[in-house]
Amino acid sequence: MAGLRPLGLTTIKTLSLSKVYQLLEPGPVVLLTTTNKGRANVMTMSWHMMVEFEPPLVACVVSSANYSFAALRATGECVIAIPARKLAPKVVKVGNSSGRDIDKFEAFGLTPAPGERVRPPLVAECFANFECKVTDARFVNKYNLFILEVLKAWIDPVQKNPKTIHHHGFGKFVVDGEIIKLKSKMR
Amino acid sequence: MAGLRPLGLTTIKTLSLSKVYQLLEPGPVVLLTTTNKGRANVMTMSWHMMVEFEPPLVACVVSSANYSFAALRATGECVIAIPARKLAPKVVKVGNSSGRDIDKFEAFGLTPAPGERVRPPLVAECFANFECKVTDARFVNKYNLFILEVLKAWIDPVQKNPKTIHHHGFGKFVVDGEIIKLKSKMR
Repeated sequence: MAGLRPLGLTTIKTLSLSKVYQLLEPGPVVLLTTTNKGRANVMTMSWHMMVEFEPPLVACVVSSANYSFAALRATGECVIAIPARKLAPKVVKVGNSSGRDIDKFEAFGLTPAPGERVRPPLVAECFANFECKVTDARFVNKYNLFILEVLKAWIDPVQKNPKTIHHHGFGKFVVDGEIIKLKSKMR
Repeated sequence: MAGLRPLGLTTIKTLSLSKVYQLLEPGPVVLLTTTNKGRANVMTMSWHMMVEFEPPLVACVVSSANYSFAALRATGECVIAIPARKLAPKVVKVGNSSGRDIDKFEAFGLTPAPGERVRPPLVAECFANFECKVTDARFVNKYNLFILEVLKAWIDPVQKNPKTIHHHGFGKFVVDGEIIKLKSKMR
């Protein structure tokens, strides 16, 4: 059925593209998956921001020192997956290792799952997965900065009110706390 | 004395430029000040990310619909100020109004204070202030995306362990919660 996808123990569902910014704008640590020559990889990333609401454009910086860089540049495809707090130990392991040396999905018990629009896998354990293509690579050479368009967004309805993690450097993470609501005109 | 600056009731001090990313990478809501034709303005911003550690480069998106856009483009200068949780109500008021109509500093009781390297003011109530210049404007026309270099960074040592706020859209903010430390090689 359109908009639903069985994913191991859960069934993820389509998230409206107009809501993607609500999950990325707060600045969570995310995972980025790529596939190159049939081999999937995953890295940890915190340098990303929204650029446009809809279609959702996202800018991100992937260091050319990262193994994922060549895959992203060559294929123009990735998935941004958002892990909740309980995945923090795995997120750090992903960030501490390189796809040059190991299969990180296997090594850390993360489950790659097929997406719909791009070849890189979704991460089944994450509460949100955004399938992306690179739409502008003009700032890659100078800044390692990619402009991505989110083509398809998925959420796991089983993970209710997930708390995300935010990186302050050197393995210090702050977890989402109190929620406050203020009368805002700001989208 | 170099590196110290009296600022009303407090004295701010220099923050090493190498530490700027630790405050921006987590994705807090920030204030952005500009000055145009002698008049200072301040806006609320969440679309920003780190691009380089040192010298610190920051990318941000300032909508061309915002009054600040013209000032930033014309002068190439701004200050990024990070408010702690207690300022959230003022941050929302800043975001709900336009410098076209009012002097937001005066209207909302925020204190503009002189910086050292750029003309736009620091915001005395914020726990961190980064004086910035635009170093690359090539993506402004297409994406309203500015590349900034942080020239000088200040922190208020009186505000200890400030909690920041993160915007999830429509006035829903999440405040920093639990801090976790994990063995990370990630800077």
